[in-house]
Amino acid sequence: MKDIQPKVGIIMGSKSDWQVMKEAASFLEEMQVPYEVQIVSAHRTPERMFDYARQARGRGIRVIIAGAGGAAHLPGMVASLTTLPVIGVPIKSRNSIDGWDSVLSILQMPAGVPVATVALDGARNAAILASQILAAFDETLARRLEDFKAALKEKIYRQQQELDEELDV
Amino acid sequence: MKDIQPKVGIIMGSKSDWQVMKEAASFLEEMQVPYEVQIVSAHRTPERMFDYARQARGRGIRVIIAGAGGAAHLPGMVASLTTLPVIGVPIKSRNSIDGWDSVLSILQMPAGVPVATVALDGARNAAILASQILAAFDETLARRLEDFKAALKEKIYRQQQELDEELDV
Amino acid sequence: MKDIQPKVGIIMGSKSDWQVMKEAASFLEEMQVPYEVQIVSAHRTPERMFDYARQARGRGIRVIIAGAGGAAHLPGMVASLTTLPVIGVPIKSRNSIDGWDSVLSILQMPAGVPVATVALDGARNAAILASQILAAFDETLARRLEDFKAALKEKIYRQQQELDEELDV
Amino acid sequence: MKDIQPKVGIIMGSKSDWQVMKEAASFLEEMQVPYEVQIVSAHRTPERMFDYARQARGRGIRVIIAGAGGAAHLPGMVASLTTLPVIGVPIKSRNSIDGWDSVLSILQMPAGVPVATVALDGARNAAILASQILAAFDETLARRLEDFKAALKEKIYRQQQELDEELDV
Amino acid sequence: MKDIQPKVGIIMGSKSDWQVMKEAASFLEEMQVPYEVQIVSAHRTPERMFDYARQARGRGIRVIIAGAGGAAHLPGMVASLTTLPVIGVPIKSRNSIDGWDSVLSILQMPAGVPVATVALDGARNAAILASQILAAFDETLARRLEDFKAALKEKIYRQQQELDEELDV
Amino acid sequence: MKDIQPKVGIIMGSKSDWQVMKEAASFLEEMQVPYEVQIVSAHRTPERMFDYARQARGRGIRVIIAGAGGAAHLPGMVASLTTLPVIGVPIKSRNSIDGWDSVLSILQMPAGVPVATVALDGARNAAILASQILAAFDETLARRLEDFKAALKEKIYRQQQELDEELDV
Amino acid sequence: MKDIQPKVGIIMGSKSDWQVMKEAASFLEEMQVPYEVQIVSAHRTPERMFDYARQARGRGIRVIIAGAGGAAHLPGMVASLTTLPVIGVPIKSRNSIDGWDSVLSILQMPAGVPVATVALDGARNAAILASQILAAFDETLARRLEDFKAALKEKIYRQQQELDEELDV
Amino acid sequence: MKDIQPKVGIIMGSKSDWQVMKEAASFLEEMQVPYEVQIVSAHRTPERMFDYARQARGRGIRVIIAGAGGAAHLPGMVASLTTLPVIGVPIKSRNSIDGWDSVLSILQMPAGVPVATVALDGARNAAILASQILAAFDETLARRLEDFKAALKEKIYRQQQELDEELDV
Repeated sequence: MKDIQPKVGIIMGSKSDWQVMKEAASFLEEMQVPYEVQIVSAHRTPERMFDYARQARGRGIRVIIAGAGGAAHLPGMVASLTTLPVIGVPIKSRNSIDGWDSVLSILQMPAGVPVATVALDGARNAAILASQILAAFDETLARRLEDFKAALKEKIYRQQQELDEELDV
Repeated sequence: MKDIQPKVGIIMGSKSDWQVMKEAASFLEEMQVPYEVQIVSAHRTPERMFDYARQARGRGIRVIIAGAGGAAHLPGMVASLTTLPVIGVPIKSRNSIDGWDSVLSILQMPAGVPVATVALDGARNAAILASQILAAFDETLARRLEDFKAALKEKIYRQQQELDEELDV
Repeated sequence: MKDIQPKVGIIMGSKSDWQVMKEAASFLEEMQVPYEVQIVSAHRTPERMFDYARQARGRGIRVIIAGAGGAAHLPGMVASLTTLPVIGVPIKSRNSIDGWDSVLSILQMPAGVPVATVALDGARNAAILASQILAAFDETLARRLEDFKAALKEKIYRQQQELDEELDV
Repeated sequence: MKDIQPKVGIIMGSKSDWQVMKEAASFLEEMQVPYEVQIVSAHRTPERMFDYARQARGRGIRVIIAGAGGAAHLPGMVASLTTLPVIGVPIKSRNSIDGWDSVLSILQMPAGVPVATVALDGARNAAILASQILAAFDETLARRLEDFKAALKEKIYRQQQELDEELDV
Repeated sequence: MKDIQPKVGIIMGSKSDWQVMKEAASFLEEMQVPYEVQIVSAHRTPERMFDYARQARGRGIRVIIAGAGGAAHLPGMVASLTTLPVIGVPIKSRNSIDGWDSVLSILQMPAGVPVATVALDGARNAAILASQILAAFDETLARRLEDFKAALKEKIYRQQQELDEELDV
Repeated sequence: MKDIQPKVGIIMGSKSDWQVMKEAASFLEEMQVPYEVQIVSAHRTPERMFDYARQARGRGIRVIIAGAGGAAHLPGMVASLTTLPVIGVPIKSRNSIDGWDSVLSILQMPAGVPVATVALDGARNAAILASQILAAFDETLARRLEDFKAALKEKIYRQQQELDEELDV
Repeated sequence: MKDIQPKVGIIMGSKSDWQVMKEAASFLEEMQVPYEVQIVSAHRTPERMFDYARQARGRGIRVIIAGAGGAAHLPGMVASLTTLPVIGVPIKSRNSIDGWDSVLSILQMPAGVPVATVALDGARNAAILASQILAAFDETLARRLEDFKAALKEKIYRQQQELDEELDV
Repeated sequence: MKDIQPKVGIIMGSKSDWQVMKEAASFLEEMQVPYEVQIVSAHRTPERMFDYARQARGRGIRVIIAGAGGAAHLPGMVASLTTLPVIGVPIKSRNSIDGWDSVLSILQMPAGVPVATVALDGARNAAILASQILAAFDETLARRLEDFKAALKEKIYRQQQELDEELDV
């Protein structure tokens, strides 16, 4: 999915966030959604962040997924610089106060500049949400998401069978 | 915007939530995005919620905005029943524990079923996000959002002038 | 206790919750209360959850114990679909924000649809509560619970003896 | 409902809690469930609490609803002294730290002694839960609860009509 | 210090709390304050708790130190049953919500029944406080506490020397 | 109680705290315990605080009650400078973060320097605790505290009568 | 102080923040420290923020005070764009979750980019801190700060006199 | 940097804090800012703290960095005793309640006595902030900070290259 024109931009503040964010990439691979991955730090490379956010729509990106920890400013700043939907992934980084800092820094955006926030370390869910956004206008992708949901369901039934065997019902 | 085929569904658990949620409707009016408004309670009308979520895509809805307070299950349950993107608005209801209950009940969805969560009582931001999602594939709407962002900027410059006058700079 | 008509239904959102929830099963075994165990996910198998909740009373179930983590919707949704008492067990799952998410998602139910919430990971207490509910109308079971309470007391006296020996009093 | 042998005991730590707890009494009246109301303070009348808890089952009480604020010890202490199910109502009292104190003091009971905790100030839900417990063995009451649930549903449909009129749909 | 008439009663809800509470005993040994150690559970041995609290003053006890975790009712219940000062030690037990439950259950006592609360797992500080209470009327003990404070000070100066050596100042 | 040699010193960081702290004075009056009241700010009059804490024992003070809000350093700093027992009253001041700041600043003292913390705004309980400390060695005062506890109990019984009349039982 | 070359820049995200931030301006007036006031929104005028932060040092500004509420990104983003010290004032804005969002968004900056955070709504303290920074290299200003500290002290002594009169000591 | 007249004083309450605080020393070494390191405990060596704070300015110190955990009083008390800027480092010590205690004890200082608070365990950021304060009046140091910021930026670009290689873009 990396050679095609990317539709989803996955960005993060530091390479240490990749450990969490690669789950987003892996789901987009499953869904065959082309994406790109960039390390863009709001606090260490503010100009790079400006350029990234400003040029994303023009380059064909349709959704941005931004992961950050602590006083997480990347998702909100990118959202201030583009009209594309931005999905924020709060990351529980080292020295975080139990994750509350990144959750509140991303979620509590002021009126006018929303960030679509997902659960703490929820990079996979961010990618599912990005796919749902694209699938609102793409029936093929919508069907892949239906299949994905069906597989989630299947897994529960298999778990029930395993449990029944363990409990010897 | 109410006679045209709606693209955004605004739902909420109780009419008392309308006080907050009508800000979403009012932004969609500004953006000329057709929408509908439904009271759908996860806990009091679970079948209605099932039907709403199941039929939304087929009826042409492209994004669902769901507002709920306390142990807020509406956004997450609707998300479990559709592949459309669902935006959750945590509402600080009466007897809420400072809003933490609705924020966490909507944000912390399990892997597989994301909800795009916005700030506490952030109905207006939910509508902006819904518009951004539609605008990812609609250049006219994208330009309206650009204008909206420009107006936000203008307002800051006007505030600076007012302040300068007050301070007699 | 698994071949007899079950009176208590233990349900959970994922097999990974069984690690916690099996303490409920084990207490019901002690009390000789017949029970069943089902994996029922609010978000991944919503129809299965509907069916389970709707049919439970008719099948002879008298109390439902539902365990779930994160944005825990299973206990509250089941409570919306039955008039049986539902006991909710908040589970501290991976990526939980210290358990606050599941506690508040289960506890803070809106007026009209209560869930009897127990402590974080308190599956054993959920089973004791279920037994107390059944024992309100079952003297034999009530006596077993009296014996259980007496055994808790005995244990404290034994602990005192051990401590006295350690301290050489 | 006050002359008949009570089945539900409503207790609270102070008369100031009655403002919240009377919603429990009022729901039991609706359901025609006989109840009694007692002021029983864990900290100011510990002997009275002991006597109340010890004698409740023998007097025909089947469920106890206990409301308390701050470091709320009444529900848990009563639960330690009876095998009846005890429902705890955390009350947001004056000087409470946002209600967290009463919620955690009631919810986080140690293994062996559960309290069925409901939402902050959730006295009405406590009474619904008590009725559900009784209705597990009382088909007439179960039907009244079904009617109550149907009425909740009706109310949502009426709210939708009102909203449609307001919005002139 | 265990054969003499005890002046301080150290009580705790379970033998597992001894791991924390033994630091209290060890400080009282240092100060030569006679004490006793009892396992007294508010929830599992309520009568034993009643008897202990009621008889403590008559038996010569002057201060009670009570340690408990989770929904910690022991310190507050004992305080309701005696006019002796009661020092509460919140213990971070297994399944605690980060210690907040025991802190708030002990600290937020209603008007009329105070508990002198110390830091989470602060058993040593509880014993220092108990010694200070006794030393308000005991000059010999007061001098021992002065020496203890002087030793704390000495330790800081020694730490400075070690640090200077490490830093080669 | 103000002309006699004071046994309890009530101190606070600002005159605005007197609104809360005067409840401590009023209880000591009831118990006929002589006391003094001083405004002593840790941050604005550190030398005065040093002098007060250093001289208190020599002047006959037996217990210090210190009230403070926000980053409340007064109770802990006084405790570092005396061997007298220090009772800390967390005050919910203007700009406080819901009282958490003063509670944690007073409660979480390091090993070696305890503060006997009472509930948020719990000045009356601080005075009761101070009286209990004095009463550990004063039978007359102990009897007054017994009477006080009996009066608390009486009040509950009177409340029950009022409630019975209201409910027409 | 407004015609002279400003040394302190006071910036805020919206004119509604001026209600809090003007206390900073008023303290700088007292200290005769020249300052300027600008409305600079990280989310609505990101380019203006870039320009402001980039040019501040060159224009002679020595300290920046930045106030912001909710997901407060202004202080941290400005800090990323300048080597001047940046003081952050968390503001408890409408829809804030009790101020925690702005506190954590400003305080928990990643390694490399500090913000000097002061208390919630602590604009006056921000100005005192700015003055202390300037006074580290300005003896005249240092003496003014000494006088300010002396006045704080005086006020406590006056409060004591008032209290003594009220209490008729 | 240790033989020259120190400009920054690094102090901490215990040698166990050095593990965190040495990151401050190491950054000052990088920046060639002379500093000193002292163990100064507010609670165990209050006189030493008084002397340190009182004499710091006269000895040529320009900024004080104070690290402390739990009910952290060192930064605020030192700030009350000097007009130098004081930077507070909240340390997540053993028995801390997730770091909230030290954060709030340092951050929430009353009006008149600010502490420049940095992130939990943020000793390195404290040293960067101290350097920025000195650099407001020192162009050489300002250039070193510019170089430091450039190096942070470089690191992000290197991380991107590494990531590209891993992803084989």
